[in-house]
Amino acid sequence: MGRRVRARELGIKIGMMNPGRYNAITDVEGIGVGHSTIIEGEGPLIIGEGPIRTGVTAIVPHQGNVYEEKVRAAAYPYNAYGKAAGLLQLIHMGVIETPILLTDTLNTWIVADALVDYMYEIMNVKAMSINPIVGETNGSYLNDSIGRHVKKQHVFEALEEAYSPSGTGPVDEGNVGGGTPMSGFEFKGGIGTSSRVTSWFSLGVLVQLNFGRREDLRIDGVPVGKELSDVNPRGAQSSNSIMVVVATDLELTSRQLWKIAKRAMLGVARTGSYGGVHSGDFVIAFSTSKRDVEPLIENIQKHSGHLGKGRIEFDEFFLDPVYRAAVEATEEAIVNAMFKAETMIGRDYHVRRAIPLDRVKEIMSKYGRI
Amino acid sequence: MGRRVRARELGIKIGMMNPGRYNAITDVEGIGVGHSTIIEGEGPLIIGEGPIRTGVTAIVPHQGNVYEEKVRAAAYPYNAYGKAAGLLQLIHMGVIETPILLTDTLNTWIVADALVDYMYEIMNVKAMSINPIVGETNGSYLNDSIGRHVKKQHVFEALEEAYSPSGTGPVDEGNVGGGTPMSGFEFKGGIGTSSRVTSWFSLGVLVQLNFGRREDLRIDGVPVGKELSDVNPRGAQSSNSIMVVVATDLELTSRQLWKIAKRAMLGVARTGSYGGVHSGDFVIAFSTSKRDVEPLIENIQKHSGHLGKGRIEFDEFFLDPVYRAAVEATEEAIVNAMFKAETMIGRDYHVRRAIPLDRVKEIMSKYGRI
Amino acid sequence: MGRRVRARELGIKIGMMNPGRYNAITDVEGIGVGHSTIIEGEGPLIIGEGPIRTGVTAIVPHQGNVYEEKVRAAAYPYNAYGKAAGLLQLIHMGVIETPILLTDTLNTWIVADALVDYMYEIMNVKAMSINPIVGETNGSYLNDSIGRHVKKQHVFEALEEAYSPSGTGPVDEGNVGGGTPMSGFEFKGGIGTSSRVTSWFSLGVLVQLNFGRREDLRIDGVPVGKELSDVNPRGAQSSNSIMVVVATDLELTSRQLWKIAKRAMLGVARTGSYGGVHSGDFVIAFSTSKRDVEPLIENIQKHSGHLGKGRIEFDEFFLDPVYRAAVEATEEAIVNAMFKAETMIGRDYHVRRAIPLDRVKEIMSKYGRI
Amino acid sequence: MGRRVRARELGIKIGMMNPGRYNAITDVEGIGVGHSTIIEGEGPLIIGEGPIRTGVTAIVPHQGNVYEEKVRAAAYPYNAYGKAAGLLQLIHMGVIETPILLTDTLNTWIVADALVDYMYEIMNVKAMSINPIVGETNGSYLNDSIGRHVKKQHVFEALEEAYSPSGTGPVDEGNVGGGTPMSGFEFKGGIGTSSRVTSWFSLGVLVQLNFGRREDLRIDGVPVGKELSDVNPRGAQSSNSIMVVVATDLELTSRQLWKIAKRAMLGVARTGSYGGVHSGDFVIAFSTSKRDVEPLIENIQKHSGHLGKGRIEFDEFFLDPVYRAAVEATEEAIVNAMFKAETMIGRDYHVRRAIPLDRVKEIMSKYGRI
Repeated sequence: MGRRVRARELGIKIGMMNPGRYNAITDVEGIGVGHSTIIEGEGPLIIGEGPIRTGVTAIVPHQGNVYEEKVRAAAYPYNAYGKAAGLLQLIHMGVIETPILLTDTLNTWIVADALVDYMYEIMNVKAMSINPIVGETNGSYLNDSIGRHVKKQHVFEALEEAYSPSGTGPVDEGNVGGGTPMSGFEFKGGIGTSSRVTSWFSLGVLVQLNFGRREDLRIDGVPVGKELSDVNPRGAQSSNSIMVVVATDLELTSRQLWKIAKRAMLGVARTGSYGGVHSGDFVIAFSTSKRDVEPLIENIQKHSGHLGKGRIEFDEFFLDPVYRAAVEATEEAIVNAMFKAETMIGRDYHVRRAIPLDRVKEIMSKYGRI
Repeated sequence: MGRRVRARELGIKIGMMNPGRYNAITDVEGIGVGHSTIIEGEGPLIIGEGPIRTGVTAIVPHQGNVYEEKVRAAAYPYNAYGKAAGLLQLIHMGVIETPILLTDTLNTWIVADALVDYMYEIMNVKAMSINPIVGETNGSYLNDSIGRHVKKQHVFEALEEAYSPSGTGPVDEGNVGGGTPMSGFEFKGGIGTSSRVTSWFSLGVLVQLNFGRREDLRIDGVPVGKELSDVNPRGAQSSNSIMVVVATDLELTSRQLWKIAKRAMLGVARTGSYGGVHSGDFVIAFSTSKRDVEPLIENIQKHSGHLGKGRIEFDEFFLDPVYRAAVEATEEAIVNAMFKAETMIGRDYHVRRAIPLDRVKEIMSKYGRI
Repeated sequence: MGRRVRARELGIKIGMMNPGRYNAITDVEGIGVGHSTIIEGEGPLIIGEGPIRTGVTAIVPHQGNVYEEKVRAAAYPYNAYGKAAGLLQLIHMGVIETPILLTDTLNTWIVADALVDYMYEIMNVKAMSINPIVGETNGSYLNDSIGRHVKKQHVFEALEEAYSPSGTGPVDEGNVGGGTPMSGFEFKGGIGTSSRVTSWFSLGVLVQLNFGRREDLRIDGVPVGKELSDVNPRGAQSSNSIMVVVATDLELTSRQLWKIAKRAMLGVARTGSYGGVHSGDFVIAFSTSKRDVEPLIENIQKHSGHLGKGRIEFDEFFLDPVYRAAVEATEEAIVNAMFKAETMIGRDYHVRRAIPLDRVKEIMSKYGRI
Repeated sequence: MGRRVRARELGIKIGMMNPGRYNAITDVEGIGVGHSTIIEGEGPLIIGEGPIRTGVTAIVPHQGNVYEEKVRAAAYPYNAYGKAAGLLQLIHMGVIETPILLTDTLNTWIVADALVDYMYEIMNVKAMSINPIVGETNGSYLNDSIGRHVKKQHVFEALEEAYSPSGTGPVDEGNVGGGTPMSGFEFKGGIGTSSRVTSWFSLGVLVQLNFGRREDLRIDGVPVGKELSDVNPRGAQSSNSIMVVVATDLELTSRQLWKIAKRAMLGVARTGSYGGVHSGDFVIAFSTSKRDVEPLIENIQKHSGHLGKGRIEFDEFFLDPVYRAAVEATEEAIVNAMFKAETMIGRDYHVRRAIPLDRVKEIMSKYGRI
């Protein structure tokens, strides 16, 4: 099957903008990511026993106490067929006050409760209530999802990694953390990430990929899925969803972050989504608020002489490159999730094949791309 | 202090429409309500130990398996400062597939997880995921909320009561179930219910009341709160929120139910809410779909000769009496919650006084109402 | 029938907060209001000829060019059964770039087009498009609405008055401008206004009142409508809607203004609205941004020692008094609209009686209020 | 420059589903389309005189009186930077009661008012108010938009064509009707249409295309825009927006139509949109309700044995192919708009080049598509 590489290592460059150092959400300074991955047992499903293919991924918006130093945020539930916790208050208040956790569907509430534990026990929060943020997609094609095998200790492990020095560097992708049992276009999916960095802002995206029909898959516009319709076994098409987390360092309002979150879905569309009925498509966007928008506005003005500075601000015209970054990084994060994921055999001997990268390379070449 | 009675027993009749047999959400045929109430310990707060003043209230939309026989539903988060579980999918799909549980703030996720257990263990659901519905308000003024003392067994107890014959009759109010530690207008609050019944439909409301400043309280328009500003001790004003559940037997779309949910907030407004910043105000509406709208439409047409039947249907003019019922029943359910609640001493010797009904009677009389 | 007076002149004080100098939206510094009122003809309706009972009301957020100096704004369509122009872009951008005009239903587009003329011709806007804001309610019970008798000249007249020195003072109420043919609770309605002023902010409300059933009318909680059920003729109940415009000088985000707009509906509820199906209930809120929130936040903190300043800002706890002001001023503006409106005979000899103030005074006294 | 052909005539087949007879919105039975196109004058812009490059496009959902036979509808304002009329009531009521008109930005209100005239004068509507639906994009790069040259007669002309036998056949595309002055990816844009037809439903899309930056243009995933970066002159990038109208014959709720409207944006994304700040992106979806969903549900069930019929209905799983159709037809309608548009010289000698189809053919071939 060969070594798993990221899109750019295969020569695929999505869009016009440049990624940052790690081409990951951690290119937004201060953000940490940690995974806790649980892979145990094989064979037929025995609910409560396994096989277990699950985990949890933690994203911390900065290295401090998120409750004390809340960050501006927004959420966009495009097709809200999902169980995500905490989003209504997030949308209402426009802030996030805990790290963001991603996991397998039915773990949502155990993970949310453990995140509350973490905030009280480790972060010493004194408040009488906390709003934990947990996203999920449904990994039951490979995992004993009903058994709910993610426990408090796994949540704490993922958070500790996210808060450790290694959490702010390169991010593991594919079959890790919350992405462990997930699929993508009837291949193996999971966690993927990408970023876009300019002189005025950084923007990173992390996805938990679990949606898509084979024939719909497009990579940078190339109909890769159709060309790979012969790859078997394919597995069933159930369990379709995607969680997208977008982060930037630009100091924005929650309303502006909401608009950025909406753009992520355009990146999802470019990979072949038609917004399937069973696909729970959610986007969360937040800002570390470490960069002022003023220099970006001034730069835009330099190149749009006809627009006054006030208009650029009121029209939010300075958001244009940020929107573009969100679209591009989302598209690329999805491709990275598939490229880094390895074939997995799960419960009841269900198999999700890794997308064959040698074949992908041939196809991209055939269509004049690399 | 005297016996606790409901609003109508004191001679207070809210609105123009008539309540049903029980003047409760259970007047909508098939709906069951059950409470599990936990009151243990007294004295200073020791997190994880108590004192405990909490519980869970279950509302079952019919006596069957809600996953197999889903009901049309909608939610309206007026001021979404709260942790309610399951509402995004409910809003998206327009259905409820589990009973609705109400509890104390930080119990939300344990209760949601236990509700999932109930669906798999007792209801034998075979699906790979389930969307549990849990509402909450913050009872930490009296309860060791951070200790999260509601467990799986309490959730099962409340559900079993809701599914028992007694669950479909009169509903206990005040310091019961999820309402155990809650407040209302700086008096003791909790669970309250009311209904409106006509020849064409029934509509019931159940609230978990926990909001309000004393001076704002109005009962049927009378400034009772101002008149009772001398009642002490008052306690702090924290912990403000309300969960409203509206049920009807009319077969409606989720869009129509959403509009009904919005009307409940007008009933909340009439008791004195100004939509306080810290008040998490959520409304859930659902329909048992046991009554067709056709006879209601025909009756409306009879009294609105100028409107054609098609217009009544497309304009949804037939919803007018349903809107009115929702406003009236919500207002009365809030009053019932306060009237039936008894004085409670909670953690750190915090006291919430029951509203003094003899004084209320005097005031209503002074203002020409009874 | 006697002199028409405002609520406070009759001794009715809604809520706890104090109105400003004019008890009008013009208490928010810089705001101007102008009316153009057209009353012509009597007798049977001849579409295109009359009788005419219509007009237009203009609200200017400041005395300058609103396109060049846009103001932060939000809109809340509670029951969006109406034709208001410009609200989708207003909601999206969070700004208003023209004055706000109120008129009779089918005039909406002529008035919007004339407002565009005004911006180009009088304000010399150079932009290639403009988003005019026009609200409406349906005055066809008294007016030849289909005839659309408001023309460009009337729009310019109303705007010129709003931009004149007299526009920033006391505001005419009742049968003026857009409110000319409107009703309220089956009495005569129209334009009403009120304000609340503190050391930290001013907030004003102007309504175009046209909704309500007689029996539902409550004034400061007193069931005035029921007591006046004998007043005849009543006219038909059609033409139900309300447009509410809320203004403040506090510098807020459009998201915060949206939350304030939502509170206005709680004030509407207190006068007896149940959100009728045929009632187009819209709220527009904007800010002149002349007062910083900082002093308000500091004052809140002084009285809420347990809350840190950061929390007050992130939770937006400082909005609490602003919410209350919006509820109170909306309730009082509705009462003022009715109190100042005079009996009008319109097309086809339809009559809308002014609410009899002597009777109201007796009723308020009977119920212990004055 | 050569003959202008549609995408399929050039061998480009978007997606997997098949178009109908006309590959147009008129493949949904009963729908009619008419254009009124106004092209007058040349040379420098004199506001109020010209040059004029404008018009209006009418879509009638059936050949009868739309007010009397309203159709179910929904709207999705993705990036609501636009002046569209009537959408708030449409969203609220879930119905359309007039034809849909598309025009140039500042004509919106004149066109809306003329549509009201049409409903009263030609359709003999008796109601006291009507909610006209008008969409717009900004054609001021070529047109004297501020001059507002579309008048009542043009609106009536477009409607009469839509109501004539020829209106229900093939649809003119490119520089016609509302699309006359519009652009697409810095080429000439305008009106485009496409459809998808199955045994169970028909779905058609009509767009008024006016958005896009050259380098972003993708046709069926191929980076055509980058390859055409040398085509000059390019003109400025202002005037970015798209109006999408989706129609189906399936009897759906407005909520379901809203979900379909959301999918259209995924098709827009595939052509290269990143949801630009200045792009007013609106989708309107409606149903003629001539086909029951039952046969579609049964067909889905046949191919998804594991899903019960009830689940397919409650999950709305039967919408999956409808979503796909909406994405595909939107993408193709955009390409058709560009392919059929011809080079236009407008005010101030501004030029919009038609996309060179010979070059496009070469590029599609180079990238292995035709």
